[in-house]
Amino acid sequence: MIVEIVTTGTELLLGQIVDTNTSFLSQKLNQLGFDVLYHSTVGDNKIRMTQVFSNALHRSDIIITSGGLGPTQGDITKEVTAQLLNRPLFLDEDSVKNIKSFFVKRQVVMSENNLRQGMIPEGAIIMKNECGTAPGVILEHDNKTIIHLPGPPHELKWMFEHAVVPYLKKRFNLQGVIVSKILHTYGIGESSLEEKIKDFIISQSNPTIALLARQGEVIIRLTAKGNTVVEAKDLIAGLEKQLRQQIADYIWGLDNDTLEANIGKILTQKQLTIALAESCTGGLITSRITDISGSSDYLVGSIVCYTNKIKTDFIGIPPQIIIDHGAVSHQTASLLATNIRQKFTANIGMGITGIAGPNGATPTKPVGTVFIAVDGPLGIQCKKYTFNGQRTDIKYRISQAALHMLRQYTLSL
Amino acid sequence: MIVEIVTTGTELLLGQIVDTNTSFLSQKLNQLGFDVLYHSTVGDNKIRMTQVFSNALHRSDIIITSGGLGPTQGDITKEVTAQLLNRPLFLDEDSVKNIKSFFVKRQVVMSENNLRQGMIPEGAIIMKNECGTAPGVILEHDNKTIIHLPGPPHELKWMFEHAVVPYLKKRFNLQGVIVSKILHTYGIGESSLEEKIKDFIISQSNPTIALLARQGEVIIRLTAKGNTVVEAKDLIAGLEKQLRQQIADYIWGLDNDTLEANIGKILTQKQLTIALAESCTGGLITSRITDISGSSDYLVGSIVCYTNKIKTDFIGIPPQIIIDHGAVSHQTASLLATNIRQKFTANIGMGITGIAGPNGATPTKPVGTVFIAVDGPLGIQCKKYTFNGQRTDIKYRISQAALHMLRQYTLSL
Repeated sequence: MIVEIVTTGTELLLGQIVDTNTSFLSQKLNQLGFDVLYHSTVGDNKIRMTQVFSNALHRSDIIITSGGLGPTQGDITKEVTAQLLNRPLFLDEDSVKNIKSFFVKRQVVMSENNLRQGMIPEGAIIMKNECGTAPGVILEHDNKTIIHLPGPPHELKWMFEHAVVPYLKKRFNLQGVIVSKILHTYGIGESSLEEKIKDFIISQSNPTIALLARQGEVIIRLTAKGNTVVEAKDLIAGLEKQLRQQIADYIWGLDNDTLEANIGKILTQKQLTIALAESCTGGLITSRITDISGSSDYLVGSIVCYTNKIKTDFIGIPPQIIIDHGAVSHQTASLLATNIRQKFTANIGMGITGIAGPNGATPTKPVGTVFIAVDGPLGIQCKKYTFNGQRTDIKYRISQAALHMLRQYTLSL
Repeated sequence: MIVEIVTTGTELLLGQIVDTNTSFLSQKLNQLGFDVLYHSTVGDNKIRMTQVFSNALHRSDIIITSGGLGPTQGDITKEVTAQLLNRPLFLDEDSVKNIKSFFVKRQVVMSENNLRQGMIPEGAIIMKNECGTAPGVILEHDNKTIIHLPGPPHELKWMFEHAVVPYLKKRFNLQGVIVSKILHTYGIGESSLEEKIKDFIISQSNPTIALLARQGEVIIRLTAKGNTVVEAKDLIAGLEKQLRQQIADYIWGLDNDTLEANIGKILTQKQLTIALAESCTGGLITSRITDISGSSDYLVGSIVCYTNKIKTDFIGIPPQIIIDHGAVSHQTASLLATNIRQKFTANIGMGITGIAGPNGATPTKPVGTVFIAVDGPLGIQCKKYTFNGQRTDIKYRISQAALHMLRQYTLSL
């Protein structure tokens, strides 16, 4: 079954927005086993949209569109399809009711234009929209299928998962299920990781293995097809076990895990508290820790010691240490960790000092140099890193490194 | 002149990456005065790519492609075009030289495959790639133009700006220039802003006005066409002046301004220093301030006072204040600002305390409630806000509000 995704909207052709619907739909449809072979985009123009739809019907079996279901005169997707397939539009009472109740719920006055959204091509299957006002429609025609989805990404996603997937499964009698699992890694580049597991990547067809580089980490996506969820999960578990024999040290999380949530779980479970003295990261690490609901249970607090004065007067770094070794040094980082731990009465203290750039480098300490220290029941650990990139990239990479050090430290407690 | 953008690559059809090249090219081409009427995507398959290129040649005058110029067997863009236009490929010595020197510069061993990138269709204009190894090509054929650009966004952007724009300007004798200017606003929603300036939006065709909602702000893009840069800039200046008569209070910055950079300039210019006591934002505001190089000149430091203990023991909030009014209160926020200012000897102190959610709400203080206080030479100011959204959205919106308060306060100093 060949699928074509057609996004509509002049704002796409003007480049005013980046289209994320297409990659979302492509990923999901591939996982269901469909071949997505074409993407097309066309503006809100009746003649050109008709040509693009007609071309898509010619070369593909299933056409999924996004956009053009809104209340304005520029929203013409259903109109174009209605004419192309000779299926006159009618006003669907149920859809009108849903649209009206959507406005009532939000205590907003409905414009009469919104009723246009209730116009449906004859013989269509109607998909309710619980995130917006535009219903979606499915039309079957000469062994081809046209599916119209709304443009706003959250509406499209909701409708795809709740209405399109069940429809496709039933209609095309999709046997089996697709299950994916993500392994998050840290501390290894994409090509080195690929090298370590390339035999698996080459030999495996079910599950498949895909490597994807993200900011500050590489993720591995395992995708298995099975007759049941249990069977697909078993396939993934088998491969994951083999992969872990090669790369266990680099894997820190699964699926939607974030590093800050992962650390939050460890700290909560071990009933540990933490305090930080951040210099070059300026509060970023603490901010990431507090992105997690419940972090007040383990984060005591932090000091952003951006100036030497704060380091000496409020975190008790002896001025002589800064004179002898520099504010960016093993000694300063370690004392920051030890002193903030003691001062804020936390189980674990962290100290971070470095050069985020682009200024501040010295011959021996280039931009990106950072010292990260952790102090706690196991004693003190301090590591030096050098990161590349723009100032904000460097800050983010330091925060990744610091959170990983924290994770390793707390795991061994 | 009708333009079609064709992105190639199976990774796009699999949904593994979001295509940002298309929106970049669309925006730039529209600014040059071209009509971009179609976007298409096709995989690394010779038959289908030939059909898509052929269809594009039929309906469009200029076809710009991205991707498929790499060294692997899957990179077939030039091959497809060579066959389609009957322009045999030859190995271009200059391109080979450039490719080889690229590897030498980076001290990386070149694989023989990379020489494939030097294969060029007969009669093509070759575009050097200073960001990567793949040269781009331009082919003119029966009044149509095909332009092949590399897929990696930074290579594509560089080549577009440095080679494609000059080519298009000369070839199509593009008269005049396009100049854009962005006005950043805060404190007003997209629809209210549109309402206030709708007469201009309707009546203007040069410059044009576009409103775009971004996270926590709305931007206004003015785009003018003129015979010279000066003429286009004058047109924009005239409209900007008129707009400012309606909405001056909401405009805080221009073009690539960020709020944190904008504040940095004010603080530097007025030789002011700042210290913060952040509770619910967990260091985010300080982190944003330190995203700016040179912020060590005005940021003394901050305390992330996530627990009441830190608020009382280290920032000197009397426990009775917290008992009587709560940690999230006008009183606590104001004292945080006053005390951190004094403690860290800064000209300006800020205190931020609120409920980022999803837990911690009370009947009178729902999730999203926040008190933001600024203390300085003008005395203390404290405002209450209520924001919606997820925890991280709320944190970000609080940071926007706080930075805007800080900006207003320092501007009046």
